[in-house]
Amino acid sequence: MDTPDTEAPAVPPSRDAEPGTPWLDAREQRFWRTHLEVGKLLDHQLSRELQTHGLAINDYEILVVLSESPDHRMRMTDLATATLQSKSRLSHQITRMETAGLVLRQDCPGDRRGLYAHLTEHGWDTLRKVAPDHVRGVREHFVDRLTDEQLDALYTALAPIAEHLRGLRGRG
Amino acid sequence: MDTPDTEAPAVPPSRDAEPGTPWLDAREQRFWRTHLEVGKLLDHQLSRELQTHGLAINDYEILVVLSESPDHRMRMTDLATATLQSKSRLSHQITRMETAGLVLRQDCPGDRRGLYAHLTEHGWDTLRKVAPDHVRGVREHFVDRLTDEQLDALYTALAPIAEHLRGLRGRG
Repeated sequence: MDTPDTEAPAVPPSRDAEPGTPWLDAREQRFWRTHLEVGKLLDHQLSRELQTHGLAINDYEILVVLSESPDHRMRMTDLATATLQSKSRLSHQITRMETAGLVLRQDCPGDRRGLYAHLTEHGWDTLRKVAPDHVRGVREHFVDRLTDEQLDALYTALAPIAEHLRGLRGRG
Repeated sequence: MDTPDTEAPAVPPSRDAEPGTPWLDAREQRFWRTHLEVGKLLDHQLSRELQTHGLAINDYEILVVLSESPDHRMRMTDLATATLQSKSRLSHQITRMETAGLVLRQDCPGDRRGLYAHLTEHGWDTLRKVAPDHVRGVREHFVDRLTDEQLDALYTALAPIAEHLRGLRGRG
C-alpha cells in the first residue's frame, strides 16, 4: 500500500506513550476508521452528484429543512441549530443561496426575534427536480447495500448514540 | 417539536412528485437520518473537544496521517488524496498549520514531483499530547456505546460500502 488509510483520528502516535490511555484495539480501530471513511466518502460522492445540479450538499440540506418547515421558512437562528452550523457560516451560505435565487432573507413583521430564511419558488422547484436523483444516489451507494437486518441493527445501534450526542449539543 | 430533524437529504419534497422515484420508506428514512445525524453530531462533539487543544478536526487528521507516514512526511498531492480534500483547500490548511508550527512544507531534493508536508517536532509532540483525550472522546461518545456484537455487525455492513465508495473515488 502506497497511501495510508483515509483518516485515523483515534490512532495513538505510539502505544507506549501515555500508558493509562484506553487506546482502541485493532478491531475497534478497524471499525472506527471504516465508519469515518464511509461518512467521508459518502459525503464526497453525494456532493459530487449534487454538483451536477449546481448544488452543494449543504445547500440541499437547507432546501430540505425549509421545505419541511411551516410556510417554507425558518428563523435563521433555528436554521443554524437545525443544520449544526455557526450563525456566521450559515449567513454566508444563505447569501450565496440568495444570489442563486433559492432562498430569500426577510424580516418577519411583528416578530422582533430576527431574520427568517424563506424557500423561494425557484428553491422549491430545484428541490423537486434534484431530490429524485439524490435519493437514487443514497440508495445506490448506501441504503440498498444493506440487508433489512443490517439496516435495523444499525438503526438500533445508532439511535441511542444520536440521543446521547443531541443531549451534549443541547448543553452547548 | 419546535425544530425539524437535523438533516434530511433524501426526503422527497412530495411523495406525489416524480412517481418513478424509489423514495425511501419510513424505516429507511429514519435510519438514513439517524446515520447522518450521528456523523454530524460526532464530528461536532469531537471537534469541540479538539478545539480545547487549539486543533481543528482536520488538523488532527493531518497530524495522524503524517505521523504514520515514512519519515513523518508526505507529498502534498498524496496528502490531499488521503484526506479527501481538494489541493487548494489542503494548501490553505497546511499554511495555517505551518504558522502554528505543526508542519513544514519543503521541496524534496532529487524529487521533482512537488512539495512535501513534514510533521515537525512540535506537531509530533502536539499529537502525542492530544491523542489520549481524543481517543477517550471516541470511546465515550461512540465506540463504548456499542456492544461487541454491534461493533462487528456495523463493521461487516460498512466495509463493503467503503470498498464500493473507494472504487468510485478512484474513478473520480
